[in-house]
Amino acid sequence: MATDFRLKEQLSALTDRIVDSYQDIGSINHLGHCPLPSTSAVVEIINDLKEILYPGYRRRQNLHLGNVTYYVGDLVDGLHDKLTQQISRALRYDYDQKHGEDCDQRRLIDFEARGQQEAIRFLDSLPDMRRILATDAQAAYDGDPAASGLHEIIFCYPGLEAVTVHRIAHQLYRQRIPLIPRMMSEYSHSLTGIDIHPGATIGPSFFIDHGTGVVIGETCEIGTGVKVYQGVTLGALSFAKDGEGNLVRGTKRHPTIRDRVVIYANATILGGGTIVGEQSVVGASVWLTKSVPPNTMVTIETPSLRLREAS
Amino acid sequence: MATDFRLKEQLSALTDRIVDSYQDIGSINHLGHCPLPSTSAVVEIINDLKEILYPGYRRRQNLHLGNVTYYVGDLVDGLHDKLTQQISRALRYDYDQKHGEDCDQRRLIDFEARGQQEAIRFLDSLPDMRRILATDAQAAYDGDPAASGLHEIIFCYPGLEAVTVHRIAHQLYRQRIPLIPRMMSEYSHSLTGIDIHPGATIGPSFFIDHGTGVVIGETCEIGTGVKVYQGVTLGALSFAKDGEGNLVRGTKRHPTIRDRVVIYANATILGGGTIVGEQSVVGASVWLTKSVPPNTMVTIETPSLRLREAS
Amino acid sequence: MATDFRLKEQLSALTDRIVDSYQDIGSINHLGHCPLPSTSAVVEIINDLKEILYPGYRRRQNLHLGNVTYYVGDLVDGLHDKLTQQISRALRYDYDQKHGEDCDQRRLIDFEARGQQEAIRFLDSLPDMRRILATDAQAAYDGDPAASGLHEIIFCYPGLEAVTVHRIAHQLYRQRIPLIPRMMSEYSHSLTGIDIHPGATIGPSFFIDHGTGVVIGETCEIGTGVKVYQGVTLGALSFAKDGEGNLVRGTKRHPTIRDRVVIYANATILGGGTIVGEQSVVGASVWLTKSVPPNTMVTIETPSLRLREAS
Repeated sequence: MATDFRLKEQLSALTDRIVDSYQDIGSINHLGHCPLPSTSAVVEIINDLKEILYPGYRRRQNLHLGNVTYYVGDLVDGLHDKLTQQISRALRYDYDQKHGEDCDQRRLIDFEARGQQEAIRFLDSLPDMRRILATDAQAAYDGDPAASGLHEIIFCYPGLEAVTVHRIAHQLYRQRIPLIPRMMSEYSHSLTGIDIHPGATIGPSFFIDHGTGVVIGETCEIGTGVKVYQGVTLGALSFAKDGEGNLVRGTKRHPTIRDRVVIYANATILGGGTIVGEQSVVGASVWLTKSVPPNTMVTIETPSLRLREAS
Repeated sequence: MATDFRLKEQLSALTDRIVDSYQDIGSINHLGHCPLPSTSAVVEIINDLKEILYPGYRRRQNLHLGNVTYYVGDLVDGLHDKLTQQISRALRYDYDQKHGEDCDQRRLIDFEARGQQEAIRFLDSLPDMRRILATDAQAAYDGDPAASGLHEIIFCYPGLEAVTVHRIAHQLYRQRIPLIPRMMSEYSHSLTGIDIHPGATIGPSFFIDHGTGVVIGETCEIGTGVKVYQGVTLGALSFAKDGEGNLVRGTKRHPTIRDRVVIYANATILGGGTIVGEQSVVGASVWLTKSVPPNTMVTIETPSLRLREAS
Repeated sequence: MATDFRLKEQLSALTDRIVDSYQDIGSINHLGHCPLPSTSAVVEIINDLKEILYPGYRRRQNLHLGNVTYYVGDLVDGLHDKLTQQISRALRYDYDQKHGEDCDQRRLIDFEARGQQEAIRFLDSLPDMRRILATDAQAAYDGDPAASGLHEIIFCYPGLEAVTVHRIAHQLYRQRIPLIPRMMSEYSHSLTGIDIHPGATIGPSFFIDHGTGVVIGETCEIGTGVKVYQGVTLGALSFAKDGEGNLVRGTKRHPTIRDRVVIYANATILGGGTIVGEQSVVGASVWLTKSVPPNTMVTIETPSLRLREAS
């Protein structure tokens, strides 16, 4: 390559200008602090967990009841270590943020001990999580005439992918682990186009079909056997602000969806006080900011369209 | 790391509880059966096929007519083996599901022979597929004023990516290969946000612009020269159920779109009996459940909006 | 595997048919020309740039002001070479397209020299880019009650991801580098579901929440402190054609959004002459093709819904 080395000599001055900007604009760099959780480690944890939750579908084939214990035991052992390290980092980061400390080495062992406890508490939740995920897979089969069987759903359906990662992330959210739940849900969002905040509470037998564009907010409560289609937003109506004009965080801002509700494509349901009653159906493209009683079918008025000859 | 090993000893009991759940809840594990098709092998097959369909753009550069035969020949040879193996597995899985068998080794050779035949039948379709994909790339150039040329479209356009994978998956769907077509289309869905069921029939010169949120159902029929924008749903209106309340699978549930129709962003067209006639235009955000004659422009009524001073 | 080798012998005839199609249908292959930019190299460049723009969050941890200069200096040095090579290829390709030349080796050095100049001009823009990205991250925190802090936003928010890649791609677009800006924006589109054309002009403190389905067209102009939600389209109303029926490229086709405007989920704003005035609010699902004065709140009429008992 015909590099002009005189030009290239400018680069060291440029490097200095970039590094200077780390001091001027400190808000978007992370220098001289304890390490944060690692995105790639979090993705590895999700993929290990999928091997345990749905054995025989992905990385490892030819598993049977005679060898699966070794395989799963090894995965659990590795997950214990990975989760302990990542959770410790997240707890440490959170503590330092809140207490204005900066990676005081004397406290290191405390955070690792708490990280291990939380890792084990999380792993303990896996058998129950499988029980619920089996209802989600079955709900997809029962709800989609294009599904040829459970295997196709476990292999291919982005809805099951998103719900699986949500149930993992929500468990960690309930354990009040900082950062990691949202890293998980955004990884799944990137794969599926389905954006479920880890805080959302979702009952068993949940099915999202197609899924691209679905948004489910932090304080949503969703019952049993709910079915949701692509483009559905379960969102906030407006944000409360405090006396100083800052957003109030932590209030119920997103709707409540009761058991066996179906919400068709691109419907928008907004507001923390909005409740869709049991077994109701919300039609495609409905825009809803008020509660709906049980057993109600809500549809848009057949829209007036204009037809004229195409030019 | 300050691991507490007494805590860690709990893990073997946990592993046992997880493995027990594989017996209790057998629907979402695949243990002791013939291996299923592999997601990573299917992705590799797609990427090898793209090298053949669009040579010189991706992995291998500096190809010319003097060396491209060796490169393509080698890819075709490898694809023959990969496709044979994955198709055999899918056929085997399907047979076992339907006949309640479980990986009877005596039948192994039969499935491999059928797998090879289907692999060769598929590879034979590639020259014609290139002919059609060239019309799709040209349609993108003709339809998008932001496109600087065909190279940009082949490199970057998610619409062409989705249509390419669809034409591959649809060929395998027509050969009645189980599982693999949907694995392919969901891989493409994950990359592009465009969800085309492998069963959809799509004519040449098809262009999807932007594409995120597009859903095209299994029984759609789309003519020649159709153009579709982001967020368009070509979906089902409702699902028929049989006497026992189970979904009826396999009926025509999704619309028919005739030649040279344009469908703008976020339009929703539903129902197996809905036909949009030749050269018609469906405007942005239109919601359509009835047929439209040829040469018709359908738009929403200019919506009444409320304007007031922002607080 | 039970391969039938007589069947496999057909493959060489098939290879010949495929290679023949490269001559018949030359529009979608790139044989015997100068190498094009490489998608994987472009992705590597983006990831290296993120390490410089947000140090300490991704690949490399344990950075502090004592060692960050070495790390960044090394990245800048590598980026100089990668950018020079990829930009040279893009310039070369563009020249050959326009002048009907085909990789004349005598001109090689000219393109590399220009590539290096443009690479250095691009790298020089990084300190200012960091300044603007810090305002984008802060806008996300100020605008989302679910955000726990800036770290969560930098780690997880697809909106910041998309804006970061946009600011990189837009700088190269302003330097009139062909192909590479769009390769970058479509990489980001694939990860986030947010489709921002590299040509769009976007002021500081820009925040996209959730983001899936957002489309921002090439000739959009967006002011300071604008906030946009999922599914928003800032698009073209119709395309001008010249006397021969070909699309006119390069005119202002997309709207202008002034300072501190908020656009809620799934709103559609179309047309190159449409201006949304300062501090106005466009409600969810609004469909707008006309200008709106400053300080205006635009909402849809509360839609009439039909409620009946669900069957």
